Amino acid sequence: MFEAAELGHTVDKETYRKRVPALREALLDAQYDLGQTRRSSVLFLFTGVKASGKTETIQRLLEWMDPRFIDTHARQEPTQEERERPPMWRYWRALPPKGRIGIFLGHWYTDPLWARVTGELGDAAFEKRIAEINRFERMLSDEDVIVVKFYLHVTKKQQRKQLDRLAANPRTAWRVTKEDWETLSLYDQAEEVGEHLVRVTSAPHAPWLVIEGADARYRDLAVGETVLEILRHALEKRPRRPPAPRPRTRVPPMDERTVLSELDLSQKMSESLYTRELEKWQGRLALLSREKKFRKRSLVALFEGNDAAGKGGTIRRVARALDPRLYNIVPIAAPSDEEKAHPYLWRFWRRLPGLGHFTVFDRSWYGRVLVERVEALCPEADWWRAYSEINDFEAELVEHGVVVAKFWLAISREEQLRRFKERERTAYKRFKITPEDWRNRKRWEAYSEAVCMMVERTSTETSRWTLVEAEDKYFGRVKVLRTLCARLEEKL
Amino acid sequence: MFEAAELGHTVDKETYRKRVPALREALLDAQYDLGQTRRSSVLFLFTGVKASGKTETIQRLLEWMDPRFIDTHARQEPTQEERERPPMWRYWRALPPKGRIGIFLGHWYTDPLWARVTGELGDAAFEKRIAEINRFERMLSDEDVIVVKFYLHVTKKQQRKQLDRLAANPRTAWRVTKEDWETLSLYDQAEEVGEHLVRVTSAPHAPWLVIEGADARYRDLAVGETVLEILRHALEKRPRRPPAPRPRTRVPPMDERTVLSELDLSQKMSESLYTRELEKWQGRLALLSREKKFRKRSLVALFEGNDAAGKGGTIRRVARALDPRLYNIVPIAAPSDEEKAHPYLWRFWRRLPGLGHFTVFDRSWYGRVLVERVEALCPEADWWRAYSEINDFEAELVEHGVVVAKFWLAISREEQLRRFKERERTAYKRFKITPEDWRNRKRWEAYSEAVCMMVERTSTETSRWTLVEAEDKYFGRVKVLRTLCARLEEKL
Repeated sequence: MFEAAELGHTVDKETYRKRVPALREALLDAQYDLGQTRRSSVLFLFTGVKASGKTETIQRLLEWMDPRFIDTHARQEPTQEERERPPMWRYWRALPPKGRIGIFLGHWYTDPLWARVTGELGDAAFEKRIAEINRFERMLSDEDVIVVKFYLHVTKKQQRKQLDRLAANPRTAWRVTKEDWETLSLYDQAEEVGEHLVRVTSAPHAPWLVIEGADARYRDLAVGETVLEILRHALEKRPRRPPAPRPRTRVPPMDERTVLSELDLSQKMSESLYTRELEKWQGRLALLSREKKFRKRSLVALFEGNDAAGKGGTIRRVARALDPRLYNIVPIAAPSDEEKAHPYLWRFWRRLPGLGHFTVFDRSWYGRVLVERVEALCPEADWWRAYSEINDFEAELVEHGVVVAKFWLAISREEQLRRFKERERTAYKRFKITPEDWRNRKRWEAYSEAVCMMVERTSTETSRWTLVEAEDKYFGRVKVLRTLCARLEEKL
Repeated sequence: MFEAAELGHTVDKETYRKRVPALREALLDAQYDLGQTRRSSVLFLFTGVKASGKTETIQRLLEWMDPRFIDTHARQEPTQEERERPPMWRYWRALPPKGRIGIFLGHWYTDPLWARVTGELGDAAFEKRIAEINRFERMLSDEDVIVVKFYLHVTKKQQRKQLDRLAANPRTAWRVTKEDWETLSLYDQAEEVGEHLVRVTSAPHAPWLVIEGADARYRDLAVGETVLEILRHALEKRPRRPPAPRPRTRVPPMDERTVLSELDLSQKMSESLYTRELEKWQGRLALLSREKKFRKRSLVALFEGNDAAGKGGTIRRVARALDPRLYNIVPIAAPSDEEKAHPYLWRFWRRLPGLGHFTVFDRSWYGRVLVERVEALCPEADWWRAYSEINDFEAELVEHGVVVAKFWLAISREEQLRRFKERERTAYKRFKITPEDWRNRKRWEAYSEAVCMMVERTSTETSRWTLVEAEDKYFGRVKVLRTLCARLEEKL
């Protein structure tokens, strides 16, 4: 795939001087329009061996465009904060919102590529990372992030020549380190792995463009003109696509049994037992959260449930067990403008806890397959793909050692009505009941079906749902606390 | 993901008896309509542990529908013919054409699933297979094959009970083998791997449906009703989707250099040298094809090139070196009706050679990104995705040990004109020149661009293009023969 980038492309000084002014103007225009329309964000990744001109090209792009509206991310050792979270966290953080451009020199290919070249990563493990990356980039594309990947290619001879030249010039000699000379000997492996990578991660929605890196004028101009084409493409109005054809995927119900109908909501706990149990499990949770081993872990707990099922009260009982410096409660309501300008999961990624910390989500990413599905707030194709996206997301958390606990608090329709009425009667609870609650209640059946599908599709071997019988508040709260303790004990 | 299939679903005799007649009639109707409209083919895969009722369910479906229009594929040891070809060959062979239904008990999940359960396949290697399967199923969906996957789930206790029951009945005891009892001890692993598999291979376009397997009436009815829904869905008219938004992915040309322009077409060979060289390389090829090691290999050579570039003549010179019992020449023209009813690559899969054999394709699967692209015979989205599909296909061949050689025979536009005119003048060559050739010639530039993109995107580290300077026929033919010998020597 590198043949076309070994033809000895060059651009002479004269041509370069003639073409650059128009290109710069067009780039600035396109960048401005992108910021105005905010239809998508555009992300350029750069890779290539040492001395293939990556840094120079990026500098040139930043010089030609308005760098205030470009988010760059250069490879460097991860910070303490970044190391405490799953590896993709740093890239999620750096994702440009709609209307902006991202230029990444350090990105999700950097580590696996290098680890594969040095042999640290085996063939099969590499393919596993590749598969994850492919899923991630498809998600980005579905979420209106345009991803284009530049592979700057130089031959072995050109690489050596370039390093020699940098080393010979006193002003640039500092840029060539001992490690750089060592990487020369890895050129053949790097080329082989690079070519393989380009093959298995090229997709129409996230293509690789291999560009000859030896001639600076050719390289800069070729990248610049390509960037311009891609920005212009990003500005085009695209008709909203009808959903992809997909087979219907509900087994028609044969009987009334569902994961919800089989819950025994009559389970109760007396007040005196509750008081003892609450104290017991809060105490155990407090101890667990202070365990030394937990300092190498973190916990994400999320709460979903019927309206008035008691999420708030339960979360307060959990929080009471914890050191306030170690937890965060994140209530999820409608997304902010900034959040809307990013892929759906971005707002959750940014709130992930560091090591030794708890994050409790009051409602969560499951909103997409619950309220957004039932209220038709997003197209069907979007919530359909969300099941796998969410599973991938949680698998990343679990793989990084995060303890994930997911609770659905279930009450009966009758109990909900009773609680709604009580809320209306009680002055200090009245703020809790809105016309929206009454409206949601009318869609009880649709919500129940969405919950069943959610449990079927996202209660996975890495991250299970706990369905909580919350008809009796005491019983429900204790079950939640007990489950949290069990989850932590399992992992510590 | 199995929770909803452990609720103890049952269907009583009375309900079953009432529902079955209407279901059967509807299934037959839907099957008939599917055969009439021939819009897609529908493929049902079944998996589940031993005694989860897979065989019984399939028998029931075959009893309820018209088995003449169903292609079944049950797991069994591969035949000799199948072992000689890449593992996916047997499933390609069994793919139902549009209008028909496939029911597979043995399929691409069978081997990796079992190998993972027994531990024969490691975690990373398993993930690699999963990634390949995901790409394969996406391709099927893009090619109008609807894939739906049933996972019949029973608990450990139910499995044991079922095996006990089968063993106790003299009429069914033969069905329970010693190995079956042994698999009981693997239940936990099987469940874990199964649940993981369902998670990572569920996609909106190829979903898993987990169905409780213990109660036969429930199971049969649930599967039957689901099959009906899916058949009905397959019958719906779907609007042709506009192509997916994708970034433009050509680097704008900066100079005139391309992989084609850089060929030195002036290279020549004298007749006397040609005669000697031809003999030499034909002789070497003949020897190589008779080598013992080649009996564990096979060779696929494909020829593409400008019209009148001399593909036919070159292929004859290659063939002359080979034992006629050991090679096949496959000329590729417009697809047959049967071929059109299958995914694009099906017509090539079916012609793959067995061990020790050569297959020479005169034109090939690259038609999709050449003539079909340039003449707009297929939508843009289809030829775009073809690059990766072709790369995946060839990687499967190479991984299986097939030697793949790809030749592009290049001549200049002037030489083509000369040859066209000569063909018109020469009586015995006149059949070789058609109005279509003249028409294609007018699109020289478009074809050249398509060729350059093809080489850029499909000359991979596993399977390279050889560009052949064929302006001088002697030179071209010898280069082809020499390259073929080199490829074989590399691998033997």
